[in-house]
Amino acid sequence: VIDILLGPLFGRGAVAEMLTDESWLRALVQVEAAHARARGLRALADAILAAEIDLDQLGPDTARTASPLVPIVRTLREQAGPDVHVGATSQDIVDTAVALVLTRALQCVLIDARACADVAAGLAGEHRDAPIMGRTLLQHALPTSFGLRAARWMSGLDDACDWLDQVRSTDLVVDMGGPIGHAEPEIATAVAADLGLGDPGLAWHGIRLRPVRVASALGGMCGILGKIARDVTLLAQQEIAEVAEGDPARGGSSSIAQKNNPVASITVLMCTRRVPALISTMFAAMEQEHERGAGSWQVEWATITELVRLTGSAAAWARDMLEHLKVNLARMAELAGTDPDLGSSATLIERALAAHSAPRSLTPR
Amino acid sequence: VIDILLGPLFGRGAVAEMLTDESWLRALVQVEAAHARARGLRALADAILAAEIDLDQLGPDTARTASPLVPIVRTLREQAGPDVHVGATSQDIVDTAVALVLTRALQCVLIDARACADVAAGLAGEHRDAPIMGRTLLQHALPTSFGLRAARWMSGLDDACDWLDQVRSTDLVVDMGGPIGHAEPEIATAVAADLGLGDPGLAWHGIRLRPVRVASALGGMCGILGKIARDVTLLAQQEIAEVAEGDPARGGSSSIAQKNNPVASITVLMCTRRVPALISTMFAAMEQEHERGAGSWQVEWATITELVRLTGSAAAWARDMLEHLKVNLARMAELAGTDPDLGSSATLIERALAAHSAPRSLTPR
Amino acid sequence: VIDILLGPLFGRGAVAEMLTDESWLRALVQVEAAHARARGLRALADAILAAEIDLDQLGPDTARTASPLVPIVRTLREQAGPDVHVGATSQDIVDTAVALVLTRALQCVLIDARACADVAAGLAGEHRDAPIMGRTLLQHALPTSFGLRAARWMSGLDDACDWLDQVRSTDLVVDMGGPIGHAEPEIATAVAADLGLGDPGLAWHGIRLRPVRVASALGGMCGILGKIARDVTLLAQQEIAEVAEGDPARGGSSSIAQKNNPVASITVLMCTRRVPALISTMFAAMEQEHERGAGSWQVEWATITELVRLTGSAAAWARDMLEHLKVNLARMAELAGTDPDLGSSATLIERALAAHSAPRSLTPR
Amino acid sequence: VIDILLGPLFGRGAVAEMLTDESWLRALVQVEAAHARARGLRALADAILAAEIDLDQLGPDTARTASPLVPIVRTLREQAGPDVHVGATSQDIVDTAVALVLTRALQCVLIDARACADVAAGLAGEHRDAPIMGRTLLQHALPTSFGLRAARWMSGLDDACDWLDQVRSTDLVVDMGGPIGHAEPEIATAVAADLGLGDPGLAWHGIRLRPVRVASALGGMCGILGKIARDVTLLAQQEIAEVAEGDPARGGSSSIAQKNNPVASITVLMCTRRVPALISTMFAAMEQEHERGAGSWQVEWATITELVRLTGSAAAWARDMLEHLKVNLARMAELAGTDPDLGSSATLIERALAAHSAPRSLTPR
Repeated sequence: VIDILLGPLFGRGAVAEMLTDESWLRALVQVEAAHARARGLRALADAILAAEIDLDQLGPDTARTASPLVPIVRTLREQAGPDVHVGATSQDIVDTAVALVLTRALQCVLIDARACADVAAGLAGEHRDAPIMGRTLLQHALPTSFGLRAARWMSGLDDACDWLDQVRSTDLVVDMGGPIGHAEPEIATAVAADLGLGDPGLAWHGIRLRPVRVASALGGMCGILGKIARDVTLLAQQEIAEVAEGDPARGGSSSIAQKNNPVASITVLMCTRRVPALISTMFAAMEQEHERGAGSWQVEWATITELVRLTGSAAAWARDMLEHLKVNLARMAELAGTDPDLGSSATLIERALAAHSAPRSLTPR
Repeated sequence: VIDILLGPLFGRGAVAEMLTDESWLRALVQVEAAHARARGLRALADAILAAEIDLDQLGPDTARTASPLVPIVRTLREQAGPDVHVGATSQDIVDTAVALVLTRALQCVLIDARACADVAAGLAGEHRDAPIMGRTLLQHALPTSFGLRAARWMSGLDDACDWLDQVRSTDLVVDMGGPIGHAEPEIATAVAADLGLGDPGLAWHGIRLRPVRVASALGGMCGILGKIARDVTLLAQQEIAEVAEGDPARGGSSSIAQKNNPVASITVLMCTRRVPALISTMFAAMEQEHERGAGSWQVEWATITELVRLTGSAAAWARDMLEHLKVNLARMAELAGTDPDLGSSATLIERALAAHSAPRSLTPR
Repeated sequence: VIDILLGPLFGRGAVAEMLTDESWLRALVQVEAAHARARGLRALADAILAAEIDLDQLGPDTARTASPLVPIVRTLREQAGPDVHVGATSQDIVDTAVALVLTRALQCVLIDARACADVAAGLAGEHRDAPIMGRTLLQHALPTSFGLRAARWMSGLDDACDWLDQVRSTDLVVDMGGPIGHAEPEIATAVAADLGLGDPGLAWHGIRLRPVRVASALGGMCGILGKIARDVTLLAQQEIAEVAEGDPARGGSSSIAQKNNPVASITVLMCTRRVPALISTMFAAMEQEHERGAGSWQVEWATITELVRLTGSAAAWARDMLEHLKVNLARMAELAGTDPDLGSSATLIERALAAHSAPRSLTPR
Repeated sequence: VIDILLGPLFGRGAVAEMLTDESWLRALVQVEAAHARARGLRALADAILAAEIDLDQLGPDTARTASPLVPIVRTLREQAGPDVHVGATSQDIVDTAVALVLTRALQCVLIDARACADVAAGLAGEHRDAPIMGRTLLQHALPTSFGLRAARWMSGLDDACDWLDQVRSTDLVVDMGGPIGHAEPEIATAVAADLGLGDPGLAWHGIRLRPVRVASALGGMCGILGKIARDVTLLAQQEIAEVAEGDPARGGSSSIAQKNNPVASITVLMCTRRVPALISTMFAAMEQEHERGAGSWQVEWATITELVRLTGSAAAWARDMLEHLKVNLARMAELAGTDPDLGSSATLIERALAAHSAPRSLTPR
């Protein structure tokens, strides 16, 4: 909702395009096709992929069954035959489609976030000896180096990326238990291999650790991005003026001519501040009844989509902000005072940069 | 996002249609027109209302300024002249448009919620002597009457409606302080009179009690709707079978032929369980800096829209569920046992129905 | 937990003392006594009030029944006779005790919050013509008056106080439905009159609008207090230095000699930032099953206690902060620039002060 | 607060005892001692450990500085000499003490949670062929085996334990950056080795990934425990009666003689439902300013303590519940109907039990 007016703020970047209704529909159909192949029905799979589904026709059946899968399956059966979906249940297809969509979407988030870390690494290396007043509790504390501040941003981003990459590799798995969760496990294994997803062992219809692990990692990323954006908005106050957002096409106001708002960092904060509450929704949704909860997986589906979208937008905005950041070394030096003691800054930066550059064990998927 | 696939669940009913991008754009333009009229510029107002704005062209400027208002104002100025928006600021227009949209949207929510209360009143009156086993901590406690249960639903709905009606009347006001909040108050007064909204006295750019009051009342409504839906899902369990959802076109499964899921009450829960976290986002957004916060009003805007949409959908689904509810009095009597003591049920129901029927002090807006 | 180490931060002021185990025990006993009197058993009531209960002996029975009321009732029966609690249920006593404790506690919060508003009114009146740079999105916008900023603080506090006062008067009512909610209403009426609380009409064991209304008003208060504290921490940054916290005994650091941290406003933020999430817990707890939920009233009880405690502490700290605030008019004027246009500031302040001084319809309780 | 009355519910078990003020004080002092030893001052460390600190004397200084560390350091310096804490800052000591306390506390949680998993494994093995009606959306779906339900509980618990064990090993690290975060890293390394904690590389005063990772894992554990408890409360409804809580000393009511409430599972839900919101507070607290946030680490400290306490209590109650669970196989079979098809249940259980029994890579700490 308010997708167009607020889309540039909350849904920037490649991630949002992966989360449209069309993308979701495509993923759901791909999972149905993979399920057909897993049952040895290659022709059925091809017919499923060739089917034409009109998104706007699905509504009434969705309303009748509280599941968008029911009309999709009906349409697929009309076009591809009655064997579609046999042995599967709605949640199988949705949970697996979520894994499929997120595999791609998290990759996008990671590209922007790793780029942020690289820019921060550049700032850390370049400014390792640049004094800046350190501030605690929003008050001057003691001088330190701007490079160390940037190194902390970088290190936080690296850790957040690694976390997200980890859940991407371990928690995006198929769910293929059939109506009651005891379908033969070979089907799940085959679907997983087909789609390049993990194989969970047991269906997880009512055991919802995986979605909250993904949500948590997204929240960690947003927390770091929000921290950096908060720093930039504070350092860009006119009275401090140690940094400024540098994109010259940005920052105008509807009413005040000379304003140059730090638009990118503010938009990062718009996104990241909506995230903590959504994470709590994911955790609360874990209390699901019996073999499948009464409505909570739809809650998860809508919520994780919003979480990924906001995180992707925050990462895209943060990358833009960092890539154009203007650093005012003279002002930093002025506020840091004479003869600042930079402590072990240089050593700490050196070590942090080495950790940043070390080859990461990339996850294959 | 996922508007089409999940729209029938999370965005049912007339409310959702009032919250589209088109509706928001119309409201924003209406506020700009009212602002022109308040300045005595009737021709400008007419030109504003006649302007044609292409939603899909707004994105780039929104991204440049972190505000969808800037491109709207630019377009209006191109078509209606440079006096558009003079003396106002983005947040003036947005806050006032939110009040305008919500005035209409809350009315819709109230229609469905009051209808729910009326159905519950009917159940209370009809079944005042129908015994049912009372249950506490999900265990049998003592018998009581089903009419009293329904009277409690009714009473909760009445109170939730009154709360929502109250904030509709007191908290949907214009915000017209100009760039820094000290514009002449006569403009705000005139815009308020023009749009049929309240006049706040002071601009409230950074003082955000009103949005959280609306959010709280929406949360109260969802809490009551969710409680009723929870009751119905529990009473509809096959082993209990004291009620069932009665719409014969509903409830099918993608995999199990004979299933009759209580689709409407489950969908109410889907909606209501997403609400508490969104309320916390609204309260957290109150910590806004100086004369206007760095991004939090966009957070509010997106969040209150989602809150109203979910509440409207929950109310529409609950109305549908209650209007088709099938009550199995024989099964209730069987589980309640012989010679049940209904205590003061009849008296309590009588009083509650009298309170329900008493004329409410309707708010004029 | 961590009551002693962190108590001065999160549990400052008179409110915290009203929320101890001893206070709760006393309130629970008072409600049992009022319930006895409502049944015409005055001697029993006296015996109940004279009973001695050892808090440390209650634990095992609480664990056996998931209710601290069971051991309290057992002890009271041992000392005052078997008629104690007859016709009541645990939740009756707890809900009514919550109303009783909160009636007193909210009064305390209001005293500190109204004092804050008065200080802000003083600042508004004194500095109505004092220029200050207005700031939006953490950037300089246009000059305005410091008095208007203070008037907004005042107005927000007034509204938050009125909201809290309103729920205090309408939502703190007895709950006396007996085991299954259909006890004779005369008992509730009598207990309400005895304790000076409201009479709800119907028992509200499973209909939880009242607790969330109180929680929302507490959240509104914290939102305003947090906004003011945020402003002060920002204005107190050395580079801005327009205000400072003035208590000379405060602000030291464990490691940096010259530091003067704005301790009071930071502590306000510590308190207020814990509040939004607790509010969501209250709303989520509304989904209670049947005649009484499986555990959610204990969730509410613990959570509302924490909410009141944090709000009381925030109000006490904010009062202290405002009463000692040092205002640097020269610095404000310097940053505001020459010939600042204060717009309608003086008029707006005048009107706001008049509204502040108007007699409020005081609630009697 | 309300520690005594509600302690048996929200603070059961060994974990709560590790989170008292006394425990926290001891941990803080141990960290100061380790910091002294890291500087080669063994005699100072011994004097620190021998110091006597009166918790009740700390309040006034805590209020003056918004930090309980300041009075502790003052007292230690009085008794052990002026070298105490030199080179450290309050947050160094607190963050490291949190890691120290949690190392022990999470171990306790894990003991109870692993015991829960073992009981569930026993149920899975014993009842692998026991039919039970599978239920989705709170309606009968198809029969399955009770053993598979138990295997899912077990598998969810195993995964939640592994997650908690992982963050215990990777995220409980020292924080020793000194006042501004650039102290020499050798000190941190030495303190880490001394206390058996991890060494973070960079101080993380303002980069708060670690606390949210711990909070998320605690939330995952509570989500699984809450799911199991929800299942038990539903299966224990009299109309279903497939399981019952078996501790004969439990379950009484204050008003209804024959009641046998499923007290343990209800208390698990009391605890777990308070957790999601607290997690959102942790994530929101990540937006910390500059080198150290204005108050947010105290927010984290209070919140993580409550999170661990609630998780520990939930685990202790769940263990108790599972160890005494009475399973009614005859009733399960009756509701499952004749000739139930258990699908691949036996195979799935077998595999899950094998995974449960496989040696886990234990973390050494």
